Amino acid sequence: MKAAHAPRSLRRRVFGQLDLRLYRHLSATNAAVIVVILAAVALSVAETEPGIVRGNEGWFIAANTGFGVVFLAEYLLRLWSVAERAPQHAWRERMRFVVSLPALIDVLAIASSLTPLLGFNSTPLRLVRLARIVMLVRVGPFARACTLLGQAVASRRFELLVTAGLAAIVLMIGATVLYWAEGAVQPEAFGSIPRAMWWAAETLTTVGYGDVRPVTALGKVMAAVMAFAGIGVIALPAGIMASAFSDAMAQHRARLAKVEEAE
Amino acid sequence: MKAAHAPRSLRRRVFGQLDLRLYRHLSATNAAVIVVILAAVALSVAETEPGIVRGNEGWFIAANTGFGVVFLAEYLLRLWSVAERAPQHAWRERMRFVVSLPALIDVLAIASSLTPLLGFNSTPLRLVRLARIVMLVRVGPFARACTLLGQAVASRRFELLVTAGLAAIVLMIGATVLYWAEGAVQPEAFGSIPRAMWWAAETLTTVGYGDVRPVTALGKVMAAVMAFAGIGVIALPAGIMASAFSDAMAQHRARLAKVEEAE
Amino acid sequence: MKAAHAPRSLRRRVFGQLDLRLYRHLSATNAAVIVVILAAVALSVAETEPGIVRGNEGWFIAANTGFGVVFLAEYLLRLWSVAERAPQHAWRERMRFVVSLPALIDVLAIASSLTPLLGFNSTPLRLVRLARIVMLVRVGPFARACTLLGQAVASRRFELLVTAGLAAIVLMIGATVLYWAEGAVQPEAFGSIPRAMWWAAETLTTVGYGDVRPVTALGKVMAAVMAFAGIGVIALPAGIMASAFSDAMAQHRARLAKVEEAE
Amino acid sequence: MKAAHAPRSLRRRVFGQLDLRLYRHLSATNAAVIVVILAAVALSVAETEPGIVRGNEGWFIAANTGFGVVFLAEYLLRLWSVAERAPQHAWRERMRFVVSLPALIDVLAIASSLTPLLGFNSTPLRLVRLARIVMLVRVGPFARACTLLGQAVASRRFELLVTAGLAAIVLMIGATVLYWAEGAVQPEAFGSIPRAMWWAAETLTTVGYGDVRPVTALGKVMAAVMAFAGIGVIALPAGIMASAFSDAMAQHRARLAKVEEAE
Repeated sequence: MKAAHAPRSLRRRVFGQLDLRLYRHLSATNAAVIVVILAAVALSVAETEPGIVRGNEGWFIAANTGFGVVFLAEYLLRLWSVAERAPQHAWRERMRFVVSLPALIDVLAIASSLTPLLGFNSTPLRLVRLARIVMLVRVGPFARACTLLGQAVASRRFELLVTAGLAAIVLMIGATVLYWAEGAVQPEAFGSIPRAMWWAAETLTTVGYGDVRPVTALGKVMAAVMAFAGIGVIALPAGIMASAFSDAMAQHRARLAKVEEAE
Repeated sequence: MKAAHAPRSLRRRVFGQLDLRLYRHLSATNAAVIVVILAAVALSVAETEPGIVRGNEGWFIAANTGFGVVFLAEYLLRLWSVAERAPQHAWRERMRFVVSLPALIDVLAIASSLTPLLGFNSTPLRLVRLARIVMLVRVGPFARACTLLGQAVASRRFELLVTAGLAAIVLMIGATVLYWAEGAVQPEAFGSIPRAMWWAAETLTTVGYGDVRPVTALGKVMAAVMAFAGIGVIALPAGIMASAFSDAMAQHRARLAKVEEAE
Repeated sequence: MKAAHAPRSLRRRVFGQLDLRLYRHLSATNAAVIVVILAAVALSVAETEPGIVRGNEGWFIAANTGFGVVFLAEYLLRLWSVAERAPQHAWRERMRFVVSLPALIDVLAIASSLTPLLGFNSTPLRLVRLARIVMLVRVGPFARACTLLGQAVASRRFELLVTAGLAAIVLMIGATVLYWAEGAVQPEAFGSIPRAMWWAAETLTTVGYGDVRPVTALGKVMAAVMAFAGIGVIALPAGIMASAFSDAMAQHRARLAKVEEAE
Repeated sequence: MKAAHAPRSLRRRVFGQLDLRLYRHLSATNAAVIVVILAAVALSVAETEPGIVRGNEGWFIAANTGFGVVFLAEYLLRLWSVAERAPQHAWRERMRFVVSLPALIDVLAIASSLTPLLGFNSTPLRLVRLARIVMLVRVGPFARACTLLGQAVASRRFELLVTAGLAAIVLMIGATVLYWAEGAVQPEAFGSIPRAMWWAAETLTTVGYGDVRPVTALGKVMAAVMAFAGIGVIALPAGIMASAFSDAMAQHRARLAKVEEAE
């Protein structure tokens, strides 16, 4: 059963290092890849700030090219070693890998990193390179968090739909009431329901920037009533999400403990 | 027992399509009606924004008339088919339907949609047409959410009364304290308790627009003390609502599962 | 055992109407008194607003005098009927009543209502009349809420002390960090720790008026770190209060149900 | 077994008074030390405010020197009496004490208090003296709170890591979206992702100062979507912390009760 040929054996070891499984600790190689991804994301974020880039254009091009080469090498190794999933159908597994979402994100990130000749500060290129931020979903703990969040959403989709509908009604009623109370006095901020919805959104989330707010006595009374009545309703989906996520995490932990015990 | 006459049979099928029951999935017709209602509400919201309406007045009149015709047709079909609830007392059931709240809302929405000849931009007409937003309560998931919320409020009315009373006291104490501390310095914002209540409302909900805020050292200390002491109390009714709603939703889900099993 | 004399019988009936017990429904008289208290509080609040008082001084004096007479009559009836608590020691019970906190608040409210000859708009009188707001504690549901809140605080005093201490440390660390980061740039807002505490208070409660806020890059990073780390800690006492209050309310409800069953 | 020599007996009593154990009530001496520490911290905070210090420089120097002497005396007594922990290895215990974190903080606080000759208002000295705020960790209830918080963090480190990662992703996505939507219109506030993160931080914590906010329709829609989607996610780590802390506190309480019972 064991691989007899050196290449097969090497491929298996490479596969073991690169494969990410949900209920396992990270391999050393995967940990290194995560560090590189985080550095590349930090670079993508930093290069949007002119104050940082100015005078260091050369370094940024070099770093981007370097990350591109590393991601290209990792991509090719994955493409080669993924055959280990079903050695009899190596090319079918490789095709599956190529069309998987993480692999497509990788291709985009590699392409944007390896095209520095297009000129550094061109806006389109910079926006493409931001796609690299999505590579964060390949980082172990983040990937787990996203998976767990997805399970949590799925398990409570009925509650989330109902409370989201309720939150939408409250938001619309709030906007309609303030449109009615303040529309004539502040046409810029409350002159239509779509405009008043900006007020409703920043009030019912309790962000409260203060750029739009009622100024008449009637508008203030209405706004206070809407705020007291609405904040609880708006918080309902968030509360349901939090408890669902907490449950999903407890289950994940139990499964993780079982897998570790079995090994 | 089965309807022998073609008309009766048709009426029954129409009734089955239009009737909305709490523990059932939506019929195809009801799903279509919901889409139409959502579109009509979106139209009502959009037509309050002059930037969207200008130059498209004709389209808006046409769309409103169209929605009016659809809602009229649905109303008449409901009026006709509702007799199936008690075929022996067809007209009694129809009278009951006519005076029910959803049907009255429908009449208002139909009337406001089918009077475009009164001139498009007149403010009174626009306000009447906003009544159509209330039609959202006929949309399946929203109607369920409202019913569940009503049950949740009823089941905890004692707790809600008590905590709402407490929140009202805290609000009034906060306003009185700041009126006392800042009233002389900022008469516009804190010159009376009713004025100071606007500050108390936006602070204790943590919205914090920033249009009114203490400026003296004493006022700031008082405001900080009120904020720390009061935010928890103000959040009590919202927390009770959330847990009551969550319980009501769990019960609803269990009943839904039982109904589906029984079928 | 039953009262044989007419006066004793009348006194008992009056006592039964005026006495407020924690685990009973309100008597008709008590409900009427609550309505009067709420009206008197509303009057006290309204008369701080010059825009409402101007031109209606006469009505306000009359209303205040009227409320004063009603509260005086109620006070005297209570004083007379409280003897029913222990008919053998009528005057001892009356003395106890006179020195009880609710009765002292009543005296203050009556005195401030019946001295309109001192001139209507004088500030000291207006402040004294605000004491009437404290009469809210005599309103049935509010009194219960305050009692329950007191029990809730007492039952978790250890947790509340510990989390309040933690919140105080976080508040002070936040103020110190921003004093260090922004003190030189914005001496008015962050030039000392006491000044920076206003920023810390409005940020960690998430009120965020926006009158004081970091402007340097370092200050913004520090503020964001403090906000993420601190908001959870600041919310700990409020969360503990909420769960303690919720428990106290459940117990109260159970006792209320038992008392009603026993009757 | 009992100490026969007078010095040993005195040392034991001093040790009993100064030693702070987690599951015991405070000794009278420890309570006094706490009051002195709180006063010294209040002094450190107050002396950053020029309006308080001006004209009272002499009093501040005297108070600082006084606190320094008290802390020095306490430090020396602890150093002497700590030998009681293991009388056979007195000097080993003293060395352990000297290099412990609380003792090092004490040395710093004492040194900064006893160097008033360096000139009162010099900024470096003032900053050093702020180190005294860290002495709060030696105050009983605060020390317990910090210990319990540490245990709470440790017991849920997996959940906290995952949710913190999720919060970081949401923060970065929010900043990227607004950078994309508003970067061209408001280069000062949204011209790069690091700049837009200040907006994301103050919005997703719902602080909402209002210094940076979207102004275009697209930006407002994006900001509202990010706020509704993100606030729940950002609150996840805080909620996990709160429940973990609450559990740790309940365990601590149980242990405290057991220790008291055993005595």
